[in-house]
Amino acid sequence: MLGKTYDQENCSAARALELVGERWSLLIIRDALFRNITRFAEFQRSLGVATNVLSSRLDGFVAAGLMQGRTYSNHEDHYEYVLTDKGRDLAAVVIALTTWGDRWAAPNGPPIVYRHDGCGGQIDTGLVCSRCAQQVPVIEIEAEPGPGSHSGATQSSASRRVKKRRSASVAASDSARS
Amino acid sequence: MLGKTYDQENCSAARALELVGERWSLLIIRDALFRNITRFAEFQRSLGVATNVLSSRLDGFVAAGLMQGRTYSNHEDHYEYVLTDKGRDLAAVVIALTTWGDRWAAPNGPPIVYRHDGCGGQIDTGLVCSRCAQQVPVIEIEAEPGPGSHSGATQSSASRRVKKRRSASVAASDSARS
Repeated sequence: MLGKTYDQENCSAARALELVGERWSLLIIRDALFRNITRFAEFQRSLGVATNVLSSRLDGFVAAGLMQGRTYSNHEDHYEYVLTDKGRDLAAVVIALTTWGDRWAAPNGPPIVYRHDGCGGQIDTGLVCSRCAQQVPVIEIEAEPGPGSHSGATQSSASRRVKKRRSASVAASDSARS
Repeated sequence: MLGKTYDQENCSAARALELVGERWSLLIIRDALFRNITRFAEFQRSLGVATNVLSSRLDGFVAAGLMQGRTYSNHEDHYEYVLTDKGRDLAAVVIALTTWGDRWAAPNGPPIVYRHDGCGGQIDTGLVCSRCAQQVPVIEIEAEPGPGSHSGATQSSASRRVKKRRSASVAASDSARS
C-alpha cells in the first residue's frame, strides 16, 4: 500500500519504515497511542494534516494490520480507527524518537513527558542486553547477519559480512588519527 | 534544510522526524552506525539510493549536526561523513524500528542481529522506567505536558491536556463495550 521503497533492503528497520516511514505516519500513531484519538476528524484537528494524506495513511495502517477500522457506537457515519497489538507495539519507536528529540532538539525542555502509571517515573528507551540485562552504550553494539539474512532481498546488503566499526564518533576517530 | 513539516507540533518526536523523517534518512544513519560507512560512494552502493537524494540527506545531516563532513586521509577527493554524538544517539531509534520489524515483518527471522560486544547477548529496546527501573508495558504509560510544553508551537497540541486513554487495544476496547 505504501509502496516498496526499500525493496532491496533485507533489514527489519527498512521493513518497518515501509509501513510507518511516510510523512505523518508516526505522529498519527503517536496520537492514537497516547492521546487516545480514534476518529478521522480528531486526527485531522490534532495534526493539521491534509485530509487526503491522513486518509491515505489511515487506510494504509488498516491494510497493514496496524489499525482496525470499524463503526463506532452503532452510527454508520461514526467510523473509528483503533490500534491493533501490532500498531501499539510501535510505542518504543515513538518514545525512542521522543527521547532523542528531548535530548537534542528541545532547548526549553521536553514538551511531553511519558510516565509510568505505576510509580510516576519517566519512561526512557534503553538499549538493553537480553543476556546480561545491562543498558548497553552504542559503542558496545555490533551488527551481524541473523537467521533471516539470506531471504527476501535481491541485494545482499544484509547478508554480506557487516563491517566492523572502525570509529566510535568524530572525536574518537579524530584522536585515533592524530 | 529538510523543511519544517511539523511546525505546528510542539513534540520531540516531531522535531526528531523533521531531521530524520525523510525517505532513506534512518537507513543512511543505520549504515553509518553499524556498517561503519562514511563515504558517499559506499552509502550509494550499500543502499542503491539515487545520488541526488543521498547528497541531499548527507548535506542535511551535516547542517543539522548529525554528521561532520571532512576530507579523508589528506586526499581532497576523499571526503567522508562521520557521525557526531548527536547522530550516534539515534541508535536507539534504529534498533527500536528493527526490533519492531523483527517481530512483525520478518517471517524468516531477523535479517540482522544487534549484539552486545561484552557478552554476546542480543540488544533489544526496552521501555524502562527511570524511577523503578522496570520494563514498562505500553498500557502503563501515560503522556503528559512537560516543562517545554508552552514554548515553540503555534498550536497547543502538546500543551493541552493529553487525553486519558480509554482503550488499550482493539481486543481490550471490544471487550469493554460488550
